[in-house]
Amino acid sequence: MPMPRPLDAPTIALLGRAFGPDLLYDEAALSARSSDESGLAQAPAAVLLARTEAQVSRLLELANAHGFAVTPRGAGTGLAGGCLASPGGVVLDLTAMNRILNIDSRSLTATVQPGVLTGDLRSAARAKGLFYPPDPASLGTCTIGGNAATNAGGPACVKYGTTRDYVLGLSAVLPTGELIRAGVNTRKGVVGYDLARLLVGSEGTLGVITELTLKLLPHPRAAACVAAVFADLGAAMRAVIGIMARGHLPSAMEFLDARCLKLVGDLLPFRVTGGDSALVLVETDGDAEQTAREVADVEGICRELGATDLIPAATEEHSREAIWSVRRSVSTRIHEACAVYIPEDIAVPIGRIADMVAALPQVERRHGVTIYAFGHAGDGNIHLNLTAPDAALRPQVEAAAEDCVRLALGFGGTMSGEHGVGLAKRGLLPLELSPVSLRLQRGLKALLDPGHVLNPGKIFPPDEPEEHP
Amino acid sequence: MPMPRPLDAPTIALLGRAFGPDLLYDEAALSARSSDESGLAQAPAAVLLARTEAQVSRLLELANAHGFAVTPRGAGTGLAGGCLASPGGVVLDLTAMNRILNIDSRSLTATVQPGVLTGDLRSAARAKGLFYPPDPASLGTCTIGGNAATNAGGPACVKYGTTRDYVLGLSAVLPTGELIRAGVNTRKGVVGYDLARLLVGSEGTLGVITELTLKLLPHPRAAACVAAVFADLGAAMRAVIGIMARGHLPSAMEFLDARCLKLVGDLLPFRVTGGDSALVLVETDGDAEQTAREVADVEGICRELGATDLIPAATEEHSREAIWSVRRSVSTRIHEACAVYIPEDIAVPIGRIADMVAALPQVERRHGVTIYAFGHAGDGNIHLNLTAPDAALRPQVEAAAEDCVRLALGFGGTMSGEHGVGLAKRGLLPLELSPVSLRLQRGLKALLDPGHVLNPGKIFPPDEPEEHP
Repeated sequence: MPMPRPLDAPTIALLGRAFGPDLLYDEAALSARSSDESGLAQAPAAVLLARTEAQVSRLLELANAHGFAVTPRGAGTGLAGGCLASPGGVVLDLTAMNRILNIDSRSLTATVQPGVLTGDLRSAARAKGLFYPPDPASLGTCTIGGNAATNAGGPACVKYGTTRDYVLGLSAVLPTGELIRAGVNTRKGVVGYDLARLLVGSEGTLGVITELTLKLLPHPRAAACVAAVFADLGAAMRAVIGIMARGHLPSAMEFLDARCLKLVGDLLPFRVTGGDSALVLVETDGDAEQTAREVADVEGICRELGATDLIPAATEEHSREAIWSVRRSVSTRIHEACAVYIPEDIAVPIGRIADMVAALPQVERRHGVTIYAFGHAGDGNIHLNLTAPDAALRPQVEAAAEDCVRLALGFGGTMSGEHGVGLAKRGLLPLELSPVSLRLQRGLKALLDPGHVLNPGKIFPPDEPEEHP
Repeated sequence: MPMPRPLDAPTIALLGRAFGPDLLYDEAALSARSSDESGLAQAPAAVLLARTEAQVSRLLELANAHGFAVTPRGAGTGLAGGCLASPGGVVLDLTAMNRILNIDSRSLTATVQPGVLTGDLRSAARAKGLFYPPDPASLGTCTIGGNAATNAGGPACVKYGTTRDYVLGLSAVLPTGELIRAGVNTRKGVVGYDLARLLVGSEGTLGVITELTLKLLPHPRAAACVAAVFADLGAAMRAVIGIMARGHLPSAMEFLDARCLKLVGDLLPFRVTGGDSALVLVETDGDAEQTAREVADVEGICRELGATDLIPAATEEHSREAIWSVRRSVSTRIHEACAVYIPEDIAVPIGRIADMVAALPQVERRHGVTIYAFGHAGDGNIHLNLTAPDAALRPQVEAAAEDCVRLALGFGGTMSGEHGVGLAKRGLLPLELSPVSLRLQRGLKALLDPGHVLNPGKIFPPDEPEEHP
């Protein structure tokens, strides 16, 4: 298999002739595309700030002809290093392809370019009474193309599913430079193999998405939010399961463990006393009367199941926002508090969250690290933030992260619910995927990318001779 | 590429030794697995009534070693011939692998074997307060494995999505006989390529699903149903779009055109007078007060948008069933009324349904056929039943069916919303998929099934040298 080579000066000159001012290679341009939110970094040798699908196609043709690597990139908000350049490779920046081409309020679809910000799409849909549900925490800054490439999730996924469930069809440039349309423009379609969903979540390794047709819903007319404190995480999780057991399907069900709750306790309208207390945050949506009634039911269930404190239900957008700010400020405060931190993203069956979190103190003791747990209780997706106060302890934090992955797998879970593998978790892949699965997945990669030029070195374990040394 | 050969007597004897009484080759057993609901038929040379995954694996190993074809089959309720044997091949009957292994009410998942009837799964979930939404019309007789293999839909998909959206993970036997686990047991997962959804909808050509982990929801506590007649289909579709534009997301939104409505008019509590009248059927679910209020809103919107008659809202299960029986009796009555009929399954963007149906009279005149249109208005999936009174007119009906597919594609649609390609539509595939897409899909097939033994001859156009002559 041909390995991508670092760009040499003649090839950079050739790219300059092909793309003119859209090819960037000044230090600032390279530096601005050298990292994401994973803490990892790698500067590219050049950047194509693509304006058209034809440019994307041409770049990949040239990559195959000249043997260099191309890594597509949106806003760089990923947490797994999936958009980081190959050493000496080209970053294909798609943020300038950022037009909302159409929001069709009769067919309830949006057609967008990949660089559109997720929040902008949500706002444009809402202005027409429509709803694009996926809501990754970075929705104000992340791109819809990046969301599709990683199958991004968010709190609303417990009711509405992930990005994958909203991609009806897409246009993409294959690693060979060929153009393809996959999926449909309709709400249903079953003609041939599901290439659209093979590309969604493939972390930019199987194709470059250049246009998306997305499913929209009627916008819910109201929402209501409540937060409840429980004596410990076991009680909190019993409440989460109890809410669903009584027939409620909230539009968000988040939790914070005791450590996280302490970090944000000052944002609550009461003082949390118990040292093991955990917070559950529930939002429901629908029509106004229903959401009011449902959130009152949820309050009742929480009280019945032992809630020690409640932030009363909020229906106005700004008061809901006040509750959500408690949840959103957790990550920032962890960053501020800790010199080293690794954001893990395991998911376990909902019924095993409490077991998973109960196993964490042993990991902390074994490695001398501190773990903060919060996330999407309603779908079992726990953001574990493994931390240490001193950068020298990074190896211990990494070892603890691997232990957490093994624990999650032992509970029937997965190492990543929504962040993806990228560079950060590729070494752990054989813990989760069988040799048969890995071989088949490598076969898919080779089938679509025979020149091995598109985002090489991602997803698959690095012990294989895949990357340029 | 090795082509599958018809089974010869020594190979049948070898299979008999391998599988004992689970290998069937008496006339009755072969005949019982020789057709589906497409109207097409092909008897296999032998049937394996599989009891275990190990048997499935062994059969595929033998198929590769001896070069015969294997076609997996559930209940045979498909409408596209996807489960019909290759000439001289083996049918792999999975209906005896029919155990519900687990319904986990804490994690809201079901683990099932592929031969479980969809209706049985829905009932078992409901008994625990849980909901498995996909509801193909054949739910009382079809299997969940077949639903997954075809990504089956149904009326509830407008709100809840298709089978694909409920398959969290699966076990499968690859065409080589190797075992694989794909996807996760959790509600979210993004590790590696999405092999689970590559297998879902692949019509039994890429692997044999032997176990499924399915997502369940809390069961809605109530539902309500209303039916409204409009002067013509354009008015009916304006009502469908109007209902969603006002923020309602019904759990079903079906329609019958004027011809269908005449066939079932005697089931309605009033006499339909206008010759162009069309029926819209809307169901909402949620809690009791909300569904009652919502269905009253829907009635109001229908009246405002010109409904000429209404079947009043029904909330009790038996009165809802009476309304649904109007919808469900359409297919049967078309069968009874027509000597030839081809069930097409196009989907168009919701906003184009009225345009699509308006174009049908011209197709009828051109070919001298009669077309009945009904289906899933809320997601643009129209079941066109192309009919003629005399079997000799079958070529005309087929030509009209192709015209309808071309029309649907012209409106931005697809040739199949939920039935699949199988044998029935494979010749039309190049109308919808580009040469690049077809080549890539053939490459996927060859990658997973290098011996070309699993359900050969399906999906792909027959003009290629794929099948045994």
